[in-house]
Amino acid sequence: MSPGSVGVVETRYLDLPAPLPLDCGRELSGVRVAYETYGTLSPGRDNVILVCHALSGDAHAAGIAATPPEEGTREGYARGLGWWDGMIGPGKAFDTDRWFVVSTNLLGGCRGTTGPSSIDPATGEPYGPDFPVITVADMVRCERAFLDVLGVERLAAVAGGSLGGMQALQWAVDYPDQVTSIVVIASTHALQPQGVAWNAIARESIMRDPDWQGGRYYGTGRSPDAGMGVARMVGHITYLSAPGLAEKFGRRFQNGLNYTITEPEYEVESYLRYQAAAFVRRFDANTYLYLSRALTYFELGPAALNRIKARTLLIAFSSDWLYPPAASREISEILGSSAEFHVIDAPHGHDCFLLEEARQTPIVRRFLQEATEREGTA
Amino acid sequence: MSPGSVGVVETRYLDLPAPLPLDCGRELSGVRVAYETYGTLSPGRDNVILVCHALSGDAHAAGIAATPPEEGTREGYARGLGWWDGMIGPGKAFDTDRWFVVSTNLLGGCRGTTGPSSIDPATGEPYGPDFPVITVADMVRCERAFLDVLGVERLAAVAGGSLGGMQALQWAVDYPDQVTSIVVIASTHALQPQGVAWNAIARESIMRDPDWQGGRYYGTGRSPDAGMGVARMVGHITYLSAPGLAEKFGRRFQNGLNYTITEPEYEVESYLRYQAAAFVRRFDANTYLYLSRALTYFELGPAALNRIKARTLLIAFSSDWLYPPAASREISEILGSSAEFHVIDAPHGHDCFLLEEARQTPIVRRFLQEATEREGTA
Repeated sequence: MSPGSVGVVETRYLDLPAPLPLDCGRELSGVRVAYETYGTLSPGRDNVILVCHALSGDAHAAGIAATPPEEGTREGYARGLGWWDGMIGPGKAFDTDRWFVVSTNLLGGCRGTTGPSSIDPATGEPYGPDFPVITVADMVRCERAFLDVLGVERLAAVAGGSLGGMQALQWAVDYPDQVTSIVVIASTHALQPQGVAWNAIARESIMRDPDWQGGRYYGTGRSPDAGMGVARMVGHITYLSAPGLAEKFGRRFQNGLNYTITEPEYEVESYLRYQAAAFVRRFDANTYLYLSRALTYFELGPAALNRIKARTLLIAFSSDWLYPPAASREISEILGSSAEFHVIDAPHGHDCFLLEEARQTPIVRRFLQEATEREGTA
Repeated sequence: MSPGSVGVVETRYLDLPAPLPLDCGRELSGVRVAYETYGTLSPGRDNVILVCHALSGDAHAAGIAATPPEEGTREGYARGLGWWDGMIGPGKAFDTDRWFVVSTNLLGGCRGTTGPSSIDPATGEPYGPDFPVITVADMVRCERAFLDVLGVERLAAVAGGSLGGMQALQWAVDYPDQVTSIVVIASTHALQPQGVAWNAIARESIMRDPDWQGGRYYGTGRSPDAGMGVARMVGHITYLSAPGLAEKFGRRFQNGLNYTITEPEYEVESYLRYQAAAFVRRFDANTYLYLSRALTYFELGPAALNRIKARTLLIAFSSDWLYPPAASREISEILGSSAEFHVIDAPHGHDCFLLEEARQTPIVRRFLQEATEREGTA
């Protein structure tokens, strides 16, 4: 059977019935979760895979959006395709003929799940900077509460790349008896200090934009697009590799040499401007700040990792210098025989986790088969 | 003899007698050059070494400034020490007992040489964005004109790191019969596309700051400190290596976990803020833009490099990912037997050229000795 599409999908919304406790000591009331599902829940509710997205993703992981987004930065995204459509569907890595795949927009997000741009029930105004500072564990707690409502206790797998992979690890640490397996792609147990720095620079760029207004820009007609554009540019370059950039753009001029400082001269300069402009149209700056802070805080030491009972698949990419293979190797060494670790030799840096579907697919399919057979699931 | 200091040094200024023609087709009148000299000019004027600085440097390369700068970002700089004091002085790499070392602030600079913050004689106002877009070849043409006034025709060596190394290469290309040797450290014949991108991001960050005001911020009481701060942060991280950052900062909190987005949590975050604040106090944003553009444009192909007659010393650092050793190797392969190439295994990234004095010194001393003996100079 050749891999297919899950078709047209509508994002749905669910309100959590109880306040969500948070690591910082506060709790959030009235949390709404945006989600999509693909495939069919088995009668025993034992074929559920939770897919977790990265910083700029959303609940729309697969298929064609019933309500297409206005404009996106990724080719597929622009056509309304889910951000992991190459991995989720009939016959794909997360095979919807077998698995019931659930995807949520994460806590703190700006695509339907409660985040800093949501209305604070206590004031009737958007939270803005009054939104509590959240952690990856809080995101996972939110996903756990959401699945409780769905009546799903145990997950056959939790899977994600980058910040999504952090959530998968945290799931296995916090709910060791409820997760059969995790798929952790291009991720880490703790951002290296250089990654901490890149994230700090991105946040500084947003917060130094006067249009950020201390985070209270909603309804003012101004938002920190300039600063978030720069933050996105930094992100883009860290997601790609130097050889990948050289291959894609070289030192090609756009229009010859024009002796200008204000206008782009090189193709890569023009690309950065375009990417920044597209991103700010679809993403909330405060969400960027909160998610960037959460992924910076994320740190699982050996004691935490040793609580993991799930079978663990770690995939890293040779050219990913932001989430380098060494981090996944370290996790794999701590987990020992319950983990398997693959480095895929590919040139496109951290972005490989969204691009190298063909090479991830057989690894993920076989892993899910073995991990769940071993547990007698599905 | 143990290496010593050149002592207290006063920066001097010299006005070029004729307009300076530029690559863009314009010319600059009334160009002033800030400079310092160390050592004694030989009667035959044949012991001159020109030292060229990098993006954030100035004419004060060695010794103690007679008028110390208000505040600096490097430890040595803060004490008024020249940026290459470890390399220039009696018994040092550029031995002032033997060489007459000349250091100028480059064209477009903001530390005494004519640049965008200087007064345009045509209007009586600062140039701002009306300053012509300059190239590394223009900087070298300015240095050539300056040395003409000093009565120095031939240089025993031109030396520099990073953008300073680009100037050294350009000198040997443009004045092949007037340069006996060049010392090119942590530099390249052409920035790789990733470096082009980092520079574009830095410029975007400055130009998107509303206080930049299209470059006409002089005298307004506002300057794009916020944007230039972010630009400097990006610079800092690209100048250091990931392992160097890990060694220096790890993931250490400053003050424990405080659940804050607006305040620095990790030591590396605090360091970035400090560096940015110190830099904006001493550097002009328009100069940053112009120099960043010039070093992005810089590109010497094999045809240009083959014009070089000077003996060429290339030094690169193993952990320098911004100006990687591969670029210096490529230059060395094009130049063949007239070049020697060393990779110093050191962990501090691009900044090594300012830090690894002890290991550069014997290489540079021997090279200068051999290169000039061969030519019968000095």
